[in-house]
Amino acid sequence: MNVFVIGIGLIGGSLVLDIKNEYQNATIYGIDNSEEHLNKALALNIIDKKATYKDLDIADIVIISIPVDVSLHVIPKVLDGVHDNCLVLDVGSTKELVCKSVENHSKRRNFLAAHPIAGTEFSGPTAAIRNLYKGKTNIICEVEKTAFKLQEKALEIFSKLGMRIRYMDPKSHDKHIAYVSHLSHISSFMLGKTVIDKEKNERDIFDMAGSGFASTVRLAKSSPAMWTPIFEQNKENVIETLEEYIQNLQHFKLLLAENKFDAIYAEMENTNHIKQILNGIQEVKLQ
Amino acid sequence: MNVFVIGIGLIGGSLVLDIKNEYQNATIYGIDNSEEHLNKALALNIIDKKATYKDLDIADIVIISIPVDVSLHVIPKVLDGVHDNCLVLDVGSTKELVCKSVENHSKRRNFLAAHPIAGTEFSGPTAAIRNLYKGKTNIICEVEKTAFKLQEKALEIFSKLGMRIRYMDPKSHDKHIAYVSHLSHISSFMLGKTVIDKEKNERDIFDMAGSGFASTVRLAKSSPAMWTPIFEQNKENVIETLEEYIQNLQHFKLLLAENKFDAIYAEMENTNHIKQILNGIQEVKLQ
Repeated sequence: MNVFVIGIGLIGGSLVLDIKNEYQNATIYGIDNSEEHLNKALALNIIDKKATYKDLDIADIVIISIPVDVSLHVIPKVLDGVHDNCLVLDVGSTKELVCKSVENHSKRRNFLAAHPIAGTEFSGPTAAIRNLYKGKTNIICEVEKTAFKLQEKALEIFSKLGMRIRYMDPKSHDKHIAYVSHLSHISSFMLGKTVIDKEKNERDIFDMAGSGFASTVRLAKSSPAMWTPIFEQNKENVIETLEEYIQNLQHFKLLLAENKFDAIYAEMENTNHIKQILNGIQEVKLQ
Repeated sequence: MNVFVIGIGLIGGSLVLDIKNEYQNATIYGIDNSEEHLNKALALNIIDKKATYKDLDIADIVIISIPVDVSLHVIPKVLDGVHDNCLVLDVGSTKELVCKSVENHSKRRNFLAAHPIAGTEFSGPTAAIRNLYKGKTNIICEVEKTAFKLQEKALEIFSKLGMRIRYMDPKSHDKHIAYVSHLSHISSFMLGKTVIDKEKNERDIFDMAGSGFASTVRLAKSSPAMWTPIFEQNKENVIETLEEYIQNLQHFKLLLAENKFDAIYAEMENTNHIKQILNGIQEVKLQ
């Protein structure tokens, strides 16, 4: 089984590490713009061979794990190059535009749009880890548009890697993921910025920062190259979440200014039941 | 050595667990409004005996780990009741008002204002854990106002528990801690609220939430009883941090709306160096 991975970073690299472990007959081919990444991935045994787009005719599976703006151009090109039984799998964080970009492609049935909800704040091939996807949710969009045999092939892999599958239309995916993922990243980046801006002239002030601060700004270490196109593609939804978030912060500030501490207590108490919601979500530890 | 702890929760409970381990001759006395907490703390061997304020005359050390509004009334009362060589240690998250509350007390030299920057999002005696303070920063305010022998006693304990000491005036403490701790809690609570409000009618949507969301909203599980008085006492500083944070979020939203994605990339890249800042801060894992 020839598995190609285009973009060998945290997401793609971790996927093929597990696939290689589960499928003894898998040969992993890597395609990446960065020669350095390719060499590192080879050295780390994440891939078996370097490859180019010209080699795609021998692929049985192609995993596309690159920034979502680049995917829009790469996916149709990949579909052009693969044989009729090849599964082309996109694993990006936005789904509406990517599904649109292939809707009229003659090989649409070779394509499956997925979003495994897993990751860390690190990037590049050295960030790839085993078992990243174990117990994680994988959202599949427009499953009915993928050939049945290729659906089966994909589901077998996802199952072996330990993922839970949810089906969703691309529009709903992008709307909800803005709340439970994209907004978290912006809140984290802007929190980091606020503190860095304020404290840049204060030496040693970060000695005062504890694990709570580390936890809330962890995502501010994420890759701008990966996240800028995600925010661009999901702009309308992200702006909506930001407006609601800002409104809630302004309301909290007003309660403070007006000394309405009973209301502040109630706001926090009402949000405390996030405990139940978070049950089952594993937090990734700082490394 | 008779060690009294007033308020046997995460902070006070964890302190005496380690003290008991380091000082074989220590007897731990617990005072708490909640009979249930006292009984749990006894059952968990966090304290050796239940006690009341009337017993304070036998105390060698009193640790005050209760909501910061209650501390303002309790600390002078405790100072009234202890003998001349007793160390009274406050470990709350705000320092300006508490230092003011004792500035003219005849036993001011028995008092030390500290803030060990450590914790988890859990509360109550069952949240108390061993080694919580290992490698953590402990901020001491107005050290010169504490009797030298009692400074020594406190520093010995902090050193045995593995804390790093920083000295700071109470005003500066409250200003900076608003940025590196209090703001994180509000951003987390309001992020949790935004998502819960939006998704309350959407079943299963939290299946989509990954480790990033869990990390950014972890602090939204914190105790409102503990945090409301902290925000109240540090209101001016907290409002200032909130204003700057909201401004940064609004600016990010504007960049999105105006399709200034290069600027968005730059914002994130500039904040990425939070990586270096966070080095050394250990994140507490979700349990």
